[in-house]
Amino acid sequence: MLDIQNRMPTVSYKGQSMPESPIRKLVPFAEKAYKENKTVYHLNIGQPDIKSPVGAMDAVAHHSLEILAYTRSEGSEPYRQKIAGYYQRNNIMVEADDIIVTTGGSEALLFAMGSIADAGDEIIIPEPFYANYNGFAVASGVKIVPVISKIENNFALPPIAEFEKLITPRTKAILICNPGNPTGYLYSKEEISKLAAIVKKHDLFLVADEVYREFTYDGLKHYSILEEEGMDKYGIIIDSVSKRYSMCGARIGCLVSKNKEVISTALKFAQARLSPPTFAQIASEAALETPQEYFDAVIEEYVDRRDTLIRLLQEIPGVKVGHPKGAFYCIAELPIDNSDDFARWLLESFDLDGETVMVAPAAGFYSTPGVGTNQIRIAYVLKKESLVRAVHILKAALEQYRG
Amino acid sequence: MLDIQNRMPTVSYKGQSMPESPIRKLVPFAEKAYKENKTVYHLNIGQPDIKSPVGAMDAVAHHSLEILAYTRSEGSEPYRQKIAGYYQRNNIMVEADDIIVTTGGSEALLFAMGSIADAGDEIIIPEPFYANYNGFAVASGVKIVPVISKIENNFALPPIAEFEKLITPRTKAILICNPGNPTGYLYSKEEISKLAAIVKKHDLFLVADEVYREFTYDGLKHYSILEEEGMDKYGIIIDSVSKRYSMCGARIGCLVSKNKEVISTALKFAQARLSPPTFAQIASEAALETPQEYFDAVIEEYVDRRDTLIRLLQEIPGVKVGHPKGAFYCIAELPIDNSDDFARWLLESFDLDGETVMVAPAAGFYSTPGVGTNQIRIAYVLKKESLVRAVHILKAALEQYRG
Repeated sequence: MLDIQNRMPTVSYKGQSMPESPIRKLVPFAEKAYKENKTVYHLNIGQPDIKSPVGAMDAVAHHSLEILAYTRSEGSEPYRQKIAGYYQRNNIMVEADDIIVTTGGSEALLFAMGSIADAGDEIIIPEPFYANYNGFAVASGVKIVPVISKIENNFALPPIAEFEKLITPRTKAILICNPGNPTGYLYSKEEISKLAAIVKKHDLFLVADEVYREFTYDGLKHYSILEEEGMDKYGIIIDSVSKRYSMCGARIGCLVSKNKEVISTALKFAQARLSPPTFAQIASEAALETPQEYFDAVIEEYVDRRDTLIRLLQEIPGVKVGHPKGAFYCIAELPIDNSDDFARWLLESFDLDGETVMVAPAAGFYSTPGVGTNQIRIAYVLKKESLVRAVHILKAALEQYRG
Repeated sequence: MLDIQNRMPTVSYKGQSMPESPIRKLVPFAEKAYKENKTVYHLNIGQPDIKSPVGAMDAVAHHSLEILAYTRSEGSEPYRQKIAGYYQRNNIMVEADDIIVTTGGSEALLFAMGSIADAGDEIIIPEPFYANYNGFAVASGVKIVPVISKIENNFALPPIAEFEKLITPRTKAILICNPGNPTGYLYSKEEISKLAAIVKKHDLFLVADEVYREFTYDGLKHYSILEEEGMDKYGIIIDSVSKRYSMCGARIGCLVSKNKEVISTALKFAQARLSPPTFAQIASEAALETPQEYFDAVIEEYVDRRDTLIRLLQEIPGVKVGHPKGAFYCIAELPIDNSDDFARWLLESFDLDGETVMVAPAAGFYSTPGVGTNQIRIAYVLKKESLVRAVHILKAALEQYRG
């Protein structure tokens, strides 16, 4: 019966369950800090300061469209053809028909979850993981089952036996992020092969968020799930131009699979929303022509930043930090109890000569309650001088916070 | 237990249930017609041939971005401020904080459904309705409950008693499209007031897809649900720049509500996907400066097309057609049994001097099985000469098909 005591339309349980991002909760405190004229070094964000490829930005500036029309729901044909070429050059042997262009990697994740999981189905994800997986899971009615990876092991793949313990009849997939946000961990060929074996054994999908594919360091090479033998039925790649070309605002990504049923299903989700954005596809198509020097310079810059960051963090007493081999994040364990409190305190109550830092508390990247509460995620998307200063401030802050 | 007889990861029931668009099913037949060098007049599509405002396209051409960065999840602040101004000029008294910029009206619909309905909840929609509502409903786990509107009444609002019969404890909202796709019907102030009264009485949301707001004819003015008194808690507007500025490929829309709980909930969905597309927001912001002459010319063009189309359709024996007062669609009832068959036959087996037409069978716009099977939707987004020729072909085709 209708409840006539409460005459108000109400939002959904689903909407109430949608998590807030671990960073968003801090935004009011950051705004307060700005008002107090504090300088805030943003170690919290994933928006790189790297310039987008000039060719991509020029392609949009030189557009000659008179009607900004829809493209095909699966993405413009020439763009899909060219992405297929990009994958083939990266030893991922797919064709245009195996690709659906999406509105960012975000939409590719939503399409993947919608295509492979019903309400109540489970997806196993090594934690810590990209916090927005939680939001897509809630939106899709999917239950995330975490398997813990540890800072002591540099966030390497947990033992396969740990995954196997968690598999139930409702398990539909294992989802990994490689290289990892927030860990910076790059899975080895051996680790990918182990994951491939377990999904084959249990009839699961292996979904790999490979948006940081290009960002690998120390001479290591990314090994994609679709380079592995026999993964045509099982593998789904999530990809995005956001980080690769520092084009986060394009909102262009893609879903890639050799499994025709997955593609035809995801296409139905794509058709419902009509088309990915047209200007952004122009930029993304042109970005595929970006010369290798661009990436070489970017990688050199990130390696320099990483080395600086990790070295300085290790010099702080009580701080433990993994050694990231990819992406541009690291998890640091601090000699504190609660990084949510600490992050808020940094913005609200601390400054060093009028400056402070904003960090992402890591608990939001874990699904298991109580884990990661003494960790933070640091994104090294700031210039080296800023990173040096930011870590100096962090060190002083830790001394004061603990004192 | 896992079924070891069927060692294959499978797509979801949800994915299997996603409907294909009524037009998509015809695409292979259209492609066959092209191969046979037939000219196909597209009466099926919602992509206008009208040029986008020059100011909007130039704003993107003159961009000076070096980093294509995220905007805020709720949309860029200056753009939201300006849209609020647009609404105020249209007597819809909302502020920037009442608006979340979305990736097309499509995403606004998904956010609305996710924010107000859980799996199994019901939304009542007058049919025929925009076919993709079905896709968003499946993706959101929402059940659409149709209430039939009739061609005899020009698709006016069904009697409120018909809605009331369908309300259950799981009903969360009534959703209308005004002016209507596919009907072209423009709800009167009185009809909106009746809907407002029923949602207030039963604690429901009233969601209004007003993307065709600007397209009203014969001196009639659009009356928004948020012009109605006391709708702050109940009203949610879905909007889009796609049709207003002929910028379908921008993928910019918005969700508008004075209900703070709806906005803060929808914002969580927006945050999970980070940001709407940046270039498209530049175009959309500039489009708000489009001079009135642009719209006057567009409306004049559409009125001319509508008058031509309706007059010629009425001259075909056995054809019944509503008189659209808005948008750029009409539903025509044909003297046939099955418009799916007829639409396919038009592409596959018919031509008049090498020319044929593609129409959208209307059954896909109805949720009740078996209804609308003798109807088609026609979009008058082609130039007048093409419309004249297309209806001439349609007339000849009907004679041959029935003969």
